[in-house]
Amino acid sequence: MKFRIALALAASTLLASVSAQAQFAKPEDAIKFRQSALQVMATHTGRLGAMVNGRVPFDAKVAEENAHIIAIVAKMPVQGFGPGTEGGKVKPNALTDAKFKANWEKLAADAARVETAAKSGNLDQIKAAFGTYAGNCKACHDEFRNN
Amino acid sequence: MKFRIALALAASTLLASVSAQAQFAKPEDAIKFRQSALQVMATHTGRLGAMVNGRVPFDAKVAEENAHIIAIVAKMPVQGFGPGTEGGKVKPNALTDAKFKANWEKLAADAARVETAAKSGNLDQIKAAFGTYAGNCKACHDEFRNN
Repeated sequence: MKFRIALALAASTLLASVSAQAQFAKPEDAIKFRQSALQVMATHTGRLGAMVNGRVPFDAKVAEENAHIIAIVAKMPVQGFGPGTEGGKVKPNALTDAKFKANWEKLAADAARVETAAKSGNLDQIKAAFGTYAGNCKACHDEFRNN
Repeated sequence: MKFRIALALAASTLLASVSAQAQFAKPEDAIKFRQSALQVMATHTGRLGAMVNGRVPFDAKVAEENAHIIAIVAKMPVQGFGPGTEGGKVKPNALTDAKFKANWEKLAADAARVETAAKSGNLDQIKAAFGTYAGNCKACHDEFRNN
């Protein structure tokens, strides 16, 4: 057990380091994290979206699982955007723009509402909440992402 | 009994690979998803690890949040590994190896135990569960990942 913990500690030392600037040791780590979190968010948004638009049969349990993941992951990418983390497709001005941060707060709140709707098991409620949530993607990409 | 277990394993492996393939339109999507999920998992493992090894002060609430994320995300990457998804650092034999799938099931179970421990708020319990959980990383990388 002690050996395992030692291994784990060594691994976690490599994986993370607390820096003055947020939770990432290097800007590249922040960029990689936000891109990864966005990818996971997009995948699960797509899965729930497939039910919302009828491409796959509605399954309340699966919808709720995806909605829960979305609600959690929607809070992640913003952690990787900050001064000094230029890279990827983000427009540099986003990194210091209060509106960009506010967009992420709105997204997280809308994602939480998708989860609440999914818990109801009512597809119409899910559709409404999902539409509001997913509307954030394009709006923010149009303003803050280079295509 | 052994035959029944073998049948059950075969069935669940089949189901898992069918559903995983069904979830991604292209092998590249599966590869990108698993790499992203691993990245998110590594980041949050690192954050909890930093508390476990005392590099950052223990905060029961933050520990629980990270443990919850770990428990959810630990179930994700395996969805992106399956026949036809060669790419990245995975050794090709892993994609059809029952032990590789079993490793992910163990990881998910160990991650769930980290969350249970984190809910207790007891750092010693978290350390023990985290050590077991994180021990999976190196063991599986050594066997199934090209470095």
